[in-house]
Amino acid sequence: MKTYTYENSTALFKRAVKVIPCGVYGHFSPAPYVPVDAYPFFSDRARGARFWDVDGNEFIDYMCAYGPMVLGYKHPEVDAAFLKQHVESDANSVASPRMVELAELLVDMIPTADWAFFARNGADVTNMAVMVARSATGRKKIIAIKGGYHGTTPWMQAPGHHGILEEDLQHVIRIPWNDIKALETVIAEHGPDIAGFIATPYHHPVFADNELPADGYWQKVVELLHKNGSLVIVDDVRTGFRLHLGGSCERYGFKPDLIAFSKAIANGYALSALVGVESLRVDAAKVFHTGSFWFCAGSFAAAMACLKELQRLDGANLMQALGKRLTEGIVSLAANHGYTMKVSGELSMPYMRITDDGNVMLQQAWCSECTKRGAFFTSHHNWFLSTAHTEEDIKHTLDICDEAFKALKNSDGAQP
Amino acid sequence: MKTYTYENSTALFKRAVKVIPCGVYGHFSPAPYVPVDAYPFFSDRARGARFWDVDGNEFIDYMCAYGPMVLGYKHPEVDAAFLKQHVESDANSVASPRMVELAELLVDMIPTADWAFFARNGADVTNMAVMVARSATGRKKIIAIKGGYHGTTPWMQAPGHHGILEEDLQHVIRIPWNDIKALETVIAEHGPDIAGFIATPYHHPVFADNELPADGYWQKVVELLHKNGSLVIVDDVRTGFRLHLGGSCERYGFKPDLIAFSKAIANGYALSALVGVESLRVDAAKVFHTGSFWFCAGSFAAAMACLKELQRLDGANLMQALGKRLTEGIVSLAANHGYTMKVSGELSMPYMRITDDGNVMLQQAWCSECTKRGAFFTSHHNWFLSTAHTEEDIKHTLDICDEAFKALKNSDGAQP
Repeated sequence: MKTYTYENSTALFKRAVKVIPCGVYGHFSPAPYVPVDAYPFFSDRARGARFWDVDGNEFIDYMCAYGPMVLGYKHPEVDAAFLKQHVESDANSVASPRMVELAELLVDMIPTADWAFFARNGADVTNMAVMVARSATGRKKIIAIKGGYHGTTPWMQAPGHHGILEEDLQHVIRIPWNDIKALETVIAEHGPDIAGFIATPYHHPVFADNELPADGYWQKVVELLHKNGSLVIVDDVRTGFRLHLGGSCERYGFKPDLIAFSKAIANGYALSALVGVESLRVDAAKVFHTGSFWFCAGSFAAAMACLKELQRLDGANLMQALGKRLTEGIVSLAANHGYTMKVSGELSMPYMRITDDGNVMLQQAWCSECTKRGAFFTSHHNWFLSTAHTEEDIKHTLDICDEAFKALKNSDGAQP
Repeated sequence: MKTYTYENSTALFKRAVKVIPCGVYGHFSPAPYVPVDAYPFFSDRARGARFWDVDGNEFIDYMCAYGPMVLGYKHPEVDAAFLKQHVESDANSVASPRMVELAELLVDMIPTADWAFFARNGADVTNMAVMVARSATGRKKIIAIKGGYHGTTPWMQAPGHHGILEEDLQHVIRIPWNDIKALETVIAEHGPDIAGFIATPYHHPVFADNELPADGYWQKVVELLHKNGSLVIVDDVRTGFRLHLGGSCERYGFKPDLIAFSKAIANGYALSALVGVESLRVDAAKVFHTGSFWFCAGSFAAAMACLKELQRLDGANLMQALGKRLTEGIVSLAANHGYTMKVSGELSMPYMRITDDGNVMLQQAWCSECTKRGAFFTSHHNWFLSTAHTEEDIKHTLDICDEAFKALKNSDGAQP
């Protein structure tokens, strides 16, 4: 199996570092997150479950644009819906009928949703959720999970990050995931000051195994928070529509007050949505939150097409089944080669890690070998399945993984 | 001249309020900002300088999507550049060559820019600017202008807004525009804590006359801040590319450290950019700031086409000339009817106000009469010209304005 080289990407990255801090930044930044020697820095073509880098290397993509791609790149129905709208009106000086239609669809599809509010970034709506919670309760403090991610707004970053003040974090109380005892302690201590609790449906940190909610965890969270007069916010930005079409809370059987969606909502078109219960409608109307592009109509049309297609395909279950096949295959191959591969999180967006070195270096080396052979994984972040991945893709990916394990064993210092 | 009615918009708004807080929110919210009885709530078609509402009413649009539309809706070259990119790759798992090319173009075109960083909302990059300033100086306080707007992130909102904490505002010091004395006082008091100063190139509040910088104001601001080891941030989100292609600071002859762009940068496609000087490159790389859709390639391609077209047309000067013709015409018509119309701000994005009632109610009534006849103005916010407005459009608009003044005089309680 031939391994890839990256001459054009390397040359373009040299140009990039001259005019862009880091060259490529944020979650697309190669270091220290992904295997740099195998990283296809730039791509100019994507179709279905694949992208091609600027060197012409072809990749089966298990990062799916870090979540937005859920039906496959350039999905015909979604793109057609976008373009039909786009040719008539996208940016405009007044709102689009598509905004109303999409809100109606979400209210119909999502049991928690009595209303919907739209923005562009996931962080726009996690911020909106916190503002609504503070407005509705007249309280300041937000409970969040240690290692939980809700965007890069200062209040949600980790202490010590550059440009972040300790004051940005002063009303955010972090507790461990799945720890009801810790939650009870915080409520006992800060009860009258707690506006709300924010967490992802399950815990999907980077550089660490993902954790599903323990039996009854969310139900207890809702009970304790509501008893305290506080709100429950689900950040479904990364998980949304890969676990359940009605919001990931439906998979785990609980009802929050607010849910933030983005990423997969429109198969790659920039859009985010906050939905909430009836009792918060007035506060959601009182809070002032807006952006220059939040009313662009094309993304609303794309979202409706995307959600309908996910419904038609039973997308969440299809992706779970594909993820099961992929992860079971990799675990089995790893064992054949003497490695232990651990799978965590939901199978439609699994986190995988070779456990034999106790960190992610072995995993990073293996991802590098996979990437160089055409299966694009990152070592530190959960992967994503899409409905465009086929049984044939999984089979080919497993062949690549097999070769990658062989290469890993043959490379220096990478013995399990 | 027939006046418009709004049956379809009214019916759709009734559906909207059931599923969206406020029905239409943010800066698109009709009340209390715009004449509700004449407000075309929804549009599904826009071309050039015009949009059509869902009742088929045609409007010459002087709000330009509140700034993003600068070359006319559905501009052939910009849309072609977007679509050419979009068909190959938009959302993707790695970066696009278009991002590098656009950064190169901005570094070439904007004297202040030694590097560029891209996001989606204007507020993404005003936030990034503040984080970079805090990272680079190790200081906390930001000086801003009373009534200045830099997005709806909590730190930039006004005290008392719903969901905003006093702690959000604790490191923002507000001073009046054009007031060097106030700036000196703040520096004397808080000097060692001041990370930076943020302001728009000229002061363009809502519900108030806009104010250009006094002679030497910006030069003195830069001098005082730099002497204090603090940074100067220009929020060019609303003004960018309507005053000068090299950043609005070029029109006023000064050099800031950071400039935030958005709105008109890609003629309606969602994009924002922070550019900065060489000495801040490392801090811009250290700050962690990212978003799910920040690497989508279509907007980068659209931005390059938009900026090149603005350059070809000498867009800023063209819009200034069109704005001069429009505002002079309206002032003259107002006088003919016994009203005093005051123009403030730059003529490519003028703020206009009938001064005879000392508030904006008369202005609101007049805007309503204009809107009902096909010229879309808001009463409380600066307007925007685009390169798609023609001499013929202005002439037709002035006819509408003439009729609107007549109607204003004939209506109850609206005598000057």
